[in-house]
Amino acid sequence: MGLIVALDPPEGVDGVEWCLKLVRELGDVPSGYKLGLPLALDAGVEGLRRVSEAVPPGKLLIADLKLADIGYVMSLTAKKLARAGVNALIAHAFVGVKGALDELVSTCSNLGIKLVLVALMSHPGATRFMASAYGEALRVVKEVGAWGAVLPATKPEAVREGRKLLGESVKILSPGIGAQGAEPGTALRAGADYEIVGRLVTRASNPRAVAEGLVRVYERVLGRR
Amino acid sequence: MGLIVALDPPEGVDGVEWCLKLVRELGDVPSGYKLGLPLALDAGVEGLRRVSEAVPPGKLLIADLKLADIGYVMSLTAKKLARAGVNALIAHAFVGVKGALDELVSTCSNLGIKLVLVALMSHPGATRFMASAYGEALRVVKEVGAWGAVLPATKPEAVREGRKLLGESVKILSPGIGAQGAEPGTALRAGADYEIVGRLVTRASNPRAVAEGLVRVYERVLGRR
Repeated sequence: MGLIVALDPPEGVDGVEWCLKLVRELGDVPSGYKLGLPLALDAGVEGLRRVSEAVPPGKLLIADLKLADIGYVMSLTAKKLARAGVNALIAHAFVGVKGALDELVSTCSNLGIKLVLVALMSHPGATRFMASAYGEALRVVKEVGAWGAVLPATKPEAVREGRKLLGESVKILSPGIGAQGAEPGTALRAGADYEIVGRLVTRASNPRAVAEGLVRVYERVLGRR
Repeated sequence: MGLIVALDPPEGVDGVEWCLKLVRELGDVPSGYKLGLPLALDAGVEGLRRVSEAVPPGKLLIADLKLADIGYVMSLTAKKLARAGVNALIAHAFVGVKGALDELVSTCSNLGIKLVLVALMSHPGATRFMASAYGEALRVVKEVGAWGAVLPATKPEAVREGRKLLGESVKILSPGIGAQGAEPGTALRAGADYEIVGRLVTRASNPRAVAEGLVRVYERVLGRR
């Protein structure tokens, strides 16, 4: 409950095989898995399809390509990703609605794919454009009826603000746990629905035990809310 | 001179074969070629490599994945793209510098890959975030020393403003010719170095003749500047 594992293969390994091994080991312990662009480039649609077939039914499989293009290109990409077997994808709120997210929303809805929008990121450079546009980005999330929003676990006040503005119906997914500095549970306590955890799980000597430990923490946190 | 052909395969064809046919036909008529994310997903690094091997030496081969992530992920992506044989890539200025473009700039420089930053897009939704941040995005382009900037041919005043702010050393690449509404030559007259043309060339019954015609127009325009 509450755990999404980011499958980011280290350099120099066969990315698909690395993912398959982890998905088989973690099974249905996490609520879902997230795949990134470097893997997608190595694997292509065919390789991603092999990973998606190993993910237990009912679990999220999120393609995190941080789409930020015109509607036509994002929609075409969404169709390829659907063919690869993912059931959710991440795009940027800042590309705006008309001629961009409006088309993607409708394509995702036709494909039965959940749309998740990045409203804020946590690297220092994000203060330059994204931080000042944060309120407007949250309004875009609501306006297009996105299934979820990405808000950084390293900025719990932003997660709290996001929850207030988005209401209860939009899922909040928060990366930044572990290697990027936030303690497990930080984002959930601030109102997020899922914490996205990468290396802390995937590079552990016993990934399943670490994932189970996180899920126990998350159940306690969510039980208290 | 001045022509970059966007290789965006139509749905339902083998994207790599479609690109190879066009590249062989167009050869060294254009100054370069641009590949997008839908093709990259279908083809993977191996498929892109086949396309890159067909591109004549000295020509641009631009991966337009509109990268918009943290530095680590964009750098990892750049390394995969270098392996695929591209010599330029497009990222978004709005992700900011620290922890994002600073790392990508240094990776691209190590790989010998040209970095091109999107400073403005032309779809209607771009007014919501990108239009008001345009000046700041141009400053990011200069600050990180990007090789080029993407500015829309459909907004020639923005191209003019961009040229003024960026000076002569930064290349300006302008999409939006043809299917998206701008007449060939519009962006070059406003100060761009390259116009990115897709369907107008690739869906023509004689793509090479159309490309040669465009190059003649561009030589005239550039000769007059």
